[in-house]
Amino acid sequence: MASSPPEGSPAAGPRIDSRLSERLAELSDLAAATALLGWDRETHMPSQGAGPRGEVLATLERLHHERLADPALGELLAAAGRAAAGEPESDVAAIARVVGRDHERATRIPPELTGRIARATAEALPVWQRARAESDFAAFAPHLERAVELRREVAACFPDAEHPYDALLDAFEPGMTTARARAVLAELRAGLVPLVAAIAERPEPAGLRGPFAVDAQRAAALEIARSFGYDDRAWRLDDAVHPFASAIARTDVRVTGRWDEGDLSGLFAVMHEVGHGLYEAGVAPGLDRTTLGTGVSLGIHESQSRLWENQVGRSRVFWSHWQPRLAGRFSELEEIGLDDLVRAVNVVRPSLIRVDADEVTYGLHVVLRFELEVALVEGALAARDVPGAWNELMRELLGVAVPDDARGCLQDIHWAFGELGYFPTYALGNIAAAQLWDAARGDMPALDDSLAAGDGAPLLGWLRERVHSHGRRLDPAELLMRATGSELDPAPLIRYLTAKYAELYAL
Amino acid sequence: MASSPPEGSPAAGPRIDSRLSERLAELSDLAAATALLGWDRETHMPSQGAGPRGEVLATLERLHHERLADPALGELLAAAGRAAAGEPESDVAAIARVVGRDHERATRIPPELTGRIARATAEALPVWQRARAESDFAAFAPHLERAVELRREVAACFPDAEHPYDALLDAFEPGMTTARARAVLAELRAGLVPLVAAIAERPEPAGLRGPFAVDAQRAAALEIARSFGYDDRAWRLDDAVHPFASAIARTDVRVTGRWDEGDLSGLFAVMHEVGHGLYEAGVAPGLDRTTLGTGVSLGIHESQSRLWENQVGRSRVFWSHWQPRLAGRFSELEEIGLDDLVRAVNVVRPSLIRVDADEVTYGLHVVLRFELEVALVEGALAARDVPGAWNELMRELLGVAVPDDARGCLQDIHWAFGELGYFPTYALGNIAAAQLWDAARGDMPALDDSLAAGDGAPLLGWLRERVHSHGRRLDPAELLMRATGSELDPAPLIRYLTAKYAELYAL
Repeated sequence: MASSPPEGSPAAGPRIDSRLSERLAELSDLAAATALLGWDRETHMPSQGAGPRGEVLATLERLHHERLADPALGELLAAAGRAAAGEPESDVAAIARVVGRDHERATRIPPELTGRIARATAEALPVWQRARAESDFAAFAPHLERAVELRREVAACFPDAEHPYDALLDAFEPGMTTARARAVLAELRAGLVPLVAAIAERPEPAGLRGPFAVDAQRAAALEIARSFGYDDRAWRLDDAVHPFASAIARTDVRVTGRWDEGDLSGLFAVMHEVGHGLYEAGVAPGLDRTTLGTGVSLGIHESQSRLWENQVGRSRVFWSHWQPRLAGRFSELEEIGLDDLVRAVNVVRPSLIRVDADEVTYGLHVVLRFELEVALVEGALAARDVPGAWNELMRELLGVAVPDDARGCLQDIHWAFGELGYFPTYALGNIAAAQLWDAARGDMPALDDSLAAGDGAPLLGWLRERVHSHGRRLDPAELLMRATGSELDPAPLIRYLTAKYAELYAL
Repeated sequence: MASSPPEGSPAAGPRIDSRLSERLAELSDLAAATALLGWDRETHMPSQGAGPRGEVLATLERLHHERLADPALGELLAAAGRAAAGEPESDVAAIARVVGRDHERATRIPPELTGRIARATAEALPVWQRARAESDFAAFAPHLERAVELRREVAACFPDAEHPYDALLDAFEPGMTTARARAVLAELRAGLVPLVAAIAERPEPAGLRGPFAVDAQRAAALEIARSFGYDDRAWRLDDAVHPFASAIARTDVRVTGRWDEGDLSGLFAVMHEVGHGLYEAGVAPGLDRTTLGTGVSLGIHESQSRLWENQVGRSRVFWSHWQPRLAGRFSELEEIGLDDLVRAVNVVRPSLIRVDADEVTYGLHVVLRFELEVALVEGALAARDVPGAWNELMRELLGVAVPDDARGCLQDIHWAFGELGYFPTYALGNIAAAQLWDAARGDMPALDDSLAAGDGAPLLGWLRERVHSHGRRLDPAELLMRATGSELDPAPLIRYLTAKYAELYAL
């Protein structure tokens, strides 16, 4: 454990200037409104509301950007930084540093470039949709090429960066660099490729047969969610085509699910989103309306969702509690043995589609995208050559032949949005999840017992103290160091997967 | 009919300055975000979201106010007014006039007064809730007194007004004056009091017995709503404690219902809210994002909800279509005769509570509140004397004895919100509904046939052309004159009610 001051305790230090806190509250409120408008768009909005909704969101985002880039905010932040110089652990120091970085970023990227990106994205999205439907990469290639060019322009706004991809990565994972991500993901790749190959040589266990009635799944998911920390007074569960979590406020958390009668994937999707929600719900109340009252990075966010979904939700101890409780709802759970059930929810199969990938192969899908993105941004790979490079890497990493680009390099929406730098955070999150899991188990020898009793509270308490409560006060690397005593390190994930699947697959 | 240019046709005239239209779009977008946040608060928000939601709404309202009061907007509006001086029917002229008035109002009321009103309201609301629960008017009296004082301060910001209540009324009903409202409501009172007294001497018809399953009511309400013009691609129906309608956009209309198994009041509530929604959905698309793309006043809005709820929904011709169609869902509708059904949904009973009042007595509840409000603002009535005055008027107008203040002057939330000037619009709307109904029937001799066939389209088409499409382009008085050839006139409402209830009650 770290030797720093007790985490989660109210930060001492200088008081925040009221003009600054008013501006931060306004930024937070604009972000909250944007979050609700986005949630509603994916869950309740009638289809014809889409056009005007886009306009309202663009206006709120423009107002948010204007206010974030306001030089007067920059001055207040600089003054706060000077006032808190002697107390680097104070909230004011954290605000000056973190919001100062947001402000700097907002001022560095010129509005006309942001406007060109928005227009390019608006044009690219429908082309990508059509291209994917028709598996016609050539139609999308010029848009991908333009997206890469525009992101290189963004990168050029940060001339101090060591690598142009750094600026893109930093937007999602503050402090992460291309060099560091490269090293970490190379190590992950080296650990996963032989594990996947070894598993592929073993007979595949039987999956679940279903059917699992959707209403019963939704009720079961809510019951599990409550055992994790979902609170009916402050949370909602709705349906959405692509599940997501969104916090309108620390006490107003929206998670969504998607249901398939054929399996229990909907349960795992809800556990995943609840993991995201618990992070947002667990930030220290003192950070409300400071813009620091939210998750610090996509990677740390993903560590929380993956930890509840995989380390908890796909474990034997979890199902030892839930199988008998859910057996009344789903007859298959009455018939199947616990060992077979655990194997059935942990089937590993190298496959084409990232979002359907299992816990082991998932990381390789991310490694592939990261390597291509860096090459694109470096100019070492041309957009038109992406399909060949993609298919080659799929063979190399997963031993899978890609039959068409729809199931290959056109499958994800991220590049259609022009987002480069987002993908690696998925794998960074899985890596951090395994490190936090190790640390939590080290701190709480009885953790398995509580999970076997269907009680998520001890784990949640630990995560609140070590991760959630900090919001954006600590950068990801610092957070991880204090929580686990280590920097980002793929070894615990590789160890966790190797041990787990050695047992499940009798490797 | 009026001799003006064809309504609903695209307005000719000068083009709007792009700087002005950007500002109007921003104001519209902020209002749309506020509308969605409000809708969600009443329909989906978890209870603990209330605190932060209040903050977000206050921030958006402050931003909206700042931008509306911006002197630069005033200059653009003045320039637009000059540019459109020769074309008073153009959209630009309407924008210059209507938004000019909004801007003027926003600049006249100082922000510190708005702030004091917000704080007073925040303090008054919980006191009113407790006072109503305990029927303890004395606890609420000082807050009502302060609310009246604050509204007199608002009125004082408009020194040109003939009467201090004018400024309050004008916020909800542009162009309406105290003198005019007094004359109109006195005439309404003179017509209703003897009608109510005559009905009270007749035996009361049997009401419905129920039960009516809530799910079946919701499905029936949707079916009826669709026949009025509810469009699944652009509307939603949700549940709410107090039904309301809210348009997030012209193509994103949210209506809500509240259900009582004991009667069909939920159906009428939905018809009412759909009437509001159809108004918002029917504004000319050219007014989108101009701030003129919404209903012109609360009175005209209420005319639309009441027309669909009462003139249509409580008519014999309506039930001649819907009774057989809904009989499969509700056994009571199979057994009851059409005449008895129509009588059952039109029971008149002088009673204590405005929101439960029938079509005939409703107006007198409003007359009472209007007379007290004017006396409060004039200083002729002290807040502490409200209960006595209320109870006296209830006896005089409705012949009802008020047993306690909870069921008397503490029943409505409006005064707890400090809203004075709102109540009369309910009666003005009922009056306008009857005028529009007469005009529509005059223009469409086959209107009854279409309603008997369950087809709301002809009536909707007429209302779109005469009322909805104009948005806020025409002031209420001008709108009514063009649509009906008459100014606001209670005679058609009194005639309609007298004829309808003479038949139902064999007067």
